[in-house]
This record gives sequence, C-alpha cells and structure tokens, in this order.
Amino acid sequence: MNLFRGLSAFPLTPTDAEGHVQADELGAILDRLHEAGVDSIGLLGSTGGYAFLTRAERRRAVEMTVNRVGGRTPVIVGVGALRTDEAQGLAQDAASAGADGLLLAPVSYTPLTEEEVFQHFVAVASVTELPLCIYNNPGTTKFSFSEALIARLSHVPNIVAVKMPLPPGGNFKDELARLRAITPDGFAIGYSGDWGAADALLAGCDAWFSVVAGLLPGPALKLTRAAQTGDAVEAQRINGAFEPLWALFKEFGSFRVMYVIADLLGLSKAEPPRPILPLSTEVRERVQAALAGILRETV
Amino acid sequence: MNLFRGLSAFPLTPTDAEGHVQADELGAILDRLHEAGVDSIGLLGSTGGYAFLTRAERRRAVEMTVNRVGGRTPVIVGVGALRTDEAQGLAQDAASAGADGLLLAPVSYTPLTEEEVFQHFVAVASVTELPLCIYNNPGTTKFSFSEALIARLSHVPNIVAVKMPLPPGGNFKDELARLRAITPDGFAIGYSGDWGAADALLAGCDAWFSVVAGLLPGPALKLTRAAQTGDAVEAQRINGAFEPLWALFKEFGSFRVMYVIADLLGLSKAEPPRPILPLSTEVRERVQAALAGILRETV
Repeated sequence: MNLFRGLSAFPLTPTDAEGHVQADELGAILDRLHEAGVDSIGLLGSTGGYAFLTRAERRRAVEMTVNRVGGRTPVIVGVGALRTDEAQGLAQDAASAGADGLLLAPVSYTPLTEEEVFQHFVAVASVTELPLCIYNNPGTTKFSFSEALIARLSHVPNIVAVKMPLPPGGNFKDELARLRAITPDGFAIGYSGDWGAADALLAGCDAWFSVVAGLLPGPALKLTRAAQTGDAVEAQRINGAFEPLWALFKEFGSFRVMYVIADLLGLSKAEPPRPILPLSTEVRERVQAALAGILRETV
Repeated sequence: MNLFRGLSAFPLTPTDAEGHVQADELGAILDRLHEAGVDSIGLLGSTGGYAFLTRAERRRAVEMTVNRVGGRTPVIVGVGALRTDEAQGLAQDAASAGADGLLLAPVSYTPLTEEEVFQHFVAVASVTELPLCIYNNPGTTKFSFSEALIARLSHVPNIVAVKMPLPPGGNFKDELARLRAITPDGFAIGYSGDWGAADALLAGCDAWFSVVAGLLPGPALKLTRAAQTGDAVEAQRINGAFEPLWALFKEFGSFRVMYVIADLLGLSKAEPPRPILPLSTEVRERVQAALAGILRETV
C-alpha cells in the first residue's frame, strides 16, 4: 500500500522568534491530527516552514513527532534543501528518527536544469530505504517538473509518488490520465492547493496534500471521504463551506493564514518566521468568520 | 563618494565538494581583481554561490578577502538569507570582518509581500553602519521590487544603492529617469545582466555589477571606462567581443559557465555546488572559443 494516499495533513511547526521548535504546541497539533484519523502527517512541508529551520531543529521536530504519533499515524518528512549533500543529510536524519516517508522539493537559488533535478532526486532517494514523494511546487521552488521528468523519476528506486500543483484550467482528468500512462502502476499522484482538492479527489487522484487539514483535520477528512466514495454533492457542499477560507488563502498565502487559525483554535500563539509578518487584526477577523462558517457547516 | 559605482566584479567562491572555501584559489582570483583595478569586489553574490554556503564559510570568505585585498579594493559582501535574523547575523559578521558594504537580496521560499521585504531590509540595514545595496534579482529570489518600494527603501538609513536586473525592452534611459526622480541625490543605480552592461553604462547608470569581471576584469574594465567616457563605439566593440560568451551565459546560466572559465584560466578546478552540474566537454569547448575571442580582441 502506497504511503502517499488519502488525506495527508501538513501541520505548522510552531517556533519561538529564534527558530526553536515549541514541543508542546507541536505536540498538541499532532495529537489533533492523529485523533481525527488523517491518513498521514506531512511534517516540515511548506506549511511546516522547513525552509526557515536549521538541520538540528528539523531533526528535533521529526523526533518529537515520531515520539508523539509514530507507529499510529504515518509520518512523511520534508527534506528539501539547496545543496544535495544537505538534503541527503536531512533524509538520513529523518530515517534514523523513525519517519515513514520523505517529501523532496527541488529548492533552488540558481535556477536548476531538468538533469540537475533528476540527479539531485536520485542522490537523495538513494541514501535511505524510505519511499519518497516528488514535491512539485513551482510557487516556492521556481522549478516546474515536465511530465517527462516525472515519468523518468517514477522509475527511480524509492520514488513512489508526486505531489502536484493544481493544473492550469483545473483539468484534473486529462492530467491524471497522462501521468498514469507514463508512470508505473501503484505510483501515487496527489495534489496540493486546497481549493482544488474536491475536484482533484472526485477526478480520482490518490492524495490530497492538505494545508488546512494541518489544523482542521475533521472537516478535511469529511471532504476527502465523501469524494473518495464518489459523493460529489457532499464533497462540494463541504468545499463550499471552505470557500471563504480558500479566498483568504489565495489573498494572503495559506502559510500566514494558518498561524491565525492556530491562535484562534488555542493551539499556538507562535508567529511566522521573519521576514514573514503576522496578519493584521482586520484580516484575523475575516479568518475568524471563515473558520466559524466551516465549523458550523461540517459538524 | 558612493561605494556602489563603476565596475563591481563578482568572483566565484571556489569550494571543495563539502562546501569549504578554498583559500588559495579564492586568493588568486582576488589578486587578479585587485591588480586589474576594479572599483569594487562583490563577494558572495549569486556568482559567489552565497546561497550554498554556511554562515561559518561565508564569514571565512569575508575574512580571507579582507586579509587579501582589504584597504586596497573595496569589498562588498552579499548577506542574503531566508530568515531576517540570519541576514542580520551575516551583516554583523561582514562588518566585524572588515567589509566596506553590504548587498542584500530578498531570498524567499514563501513568496514575500512588499511590506515584508521593506521590514526585512530595515532590520538588516540597521544592525551595522555599512552602506547597503538593494539586490533586485527576480531570477533567483522570485521577488520583483516595484519602483515605489525602491523609492521607499532609498530613504532608509544606510540604504544607498540598488542593483537592478535588465529592464524589459532594454530601455535604460526611461527607467533611470524614473528611478532618479524618486530616489535621493547620490543614490546609486547599477545593473546586472552582463549583456546589457554597455547599454546601461552608456545610458548613464552608476555601476555595472558584473559576473564576467569576476574572472576577466581587464576586458570588463575596458568596456566600463570606454562607456563612462562616452566612447560608445569602443564600448560596443568590446561588447561585441563578449557576445559569444553572453550567448553561453544565456543558454547555460553564467554561474555554470564561470566555473569553466576559472578552470580554463588555471585559477580553479572547483566544481559548482551540487545539485548544479559541471558543463559538458562540448560546452566547455564553446566557452574556450568564446574566451579566446575576448582575449584576442581586448588586449
């Protein structure tokens, strides 16, 4: 069974102003995800702010998570880094701390070529036995995977899944058909971009890599299970309840909005790592209204 | 006199495979720049691979450089980092090691807002007394400065210059006029993008932040001095000699090509930091031919 299926919930990593992970706050968020029954936890994804954390803090976060929910909820760990040797070290750290799988984004400064990204992924996938998911996130990495490169990577040992951005025009069916045709049986294809999740799941993708599930796992699971059983009406009804939040995600970036939700839920008062600024009081009130709507309509 | 004027040469930072700076090779490159008489050295810019180096190695590189050419050729140091506190620490390191000025790019993972970039620059500019140049490089940082943001930053204490990418359509005159109108007298406006340097200098910009000058300071100085004295014919003649190299910069990225030139000149056998791959033998032969043409036509 491919690890990268169903609802993967991406928690924030609460830190202090110096970037030290706050164990109690992270623990409370992880408990919430485990209790809701998400299919996996996507630790140290973009929402987890991995790019802003030192290697030591990233290792600490994995250890805390495995100690808290390991063996009960699968733990996927983001190991992206600018240098290949650094990403390899992070992968080894995650494996030795007990992670179940890896998520690798081609973080870049100098724009990378396809061959460079291929070699980078081969090098990182080879240092552990863990299954690895390609993290295709042009919005943060500046690198867009061609379908040919995904196909090539899908035949590399340990590389078993891809996390895709929403396709242009929202045409999931055609993109999924093209990707299925060029990747091995069992290769998992999932999507990020929460506002496209209902459509993506209803079109038959394997996973929703979800930002919002990192704090609202219950409503996100309801949407996921409805879509997985083909109940389009219920999936779209729940998606409708999320719409005001999706609008805020698009306007302010989901990373910033999630810090507000964590505070509103009483889970963490942490602020995003500077230079990212906390959202204004006015925006917080809009987040609060959106949150109230979701909780009301998805009980 | 504004530090950020004339020809600023951006050297590679030769390292071993683990990212340790090679002192002898860096020293030889620095000597070459000082002896040619460049107006400043832009250490740890994009060409210097700063994004791939640890804080400790970046500090070592500054110390080596100040020891080698400090007090004779001004040293500008790139202090970009994802976290504000990290960039502040790098600025303090550079100042305490004896740098003459700072260059700050808004490195990002989560895309940044204008206000976040403004606050980040204010925070970094405030921790030292050194003059600071805004590094506007959307190709690597994913952040494009609006002219309004440049104007706002130009009034922040210590922020005295901007390093611009080539303007769309190559219209330097209009862009310079607009920027001059909204920035204080004495605020320096320079350009990167070597293939636009002749036009930029002839249009009256203050500085060429040059990749190629990091290894070929003589020819780059000839181009600069010709343009500064208004000798458009000679400036364009030298630019013409560079054209085959500009084509290679555009096709393969100047960062990769510069490693080949360093090897061809006998200055360094270092390879770029992985995941960046060394260029093929075939491309190396094209670089060699381009280099020979430049050296032949600019003696």
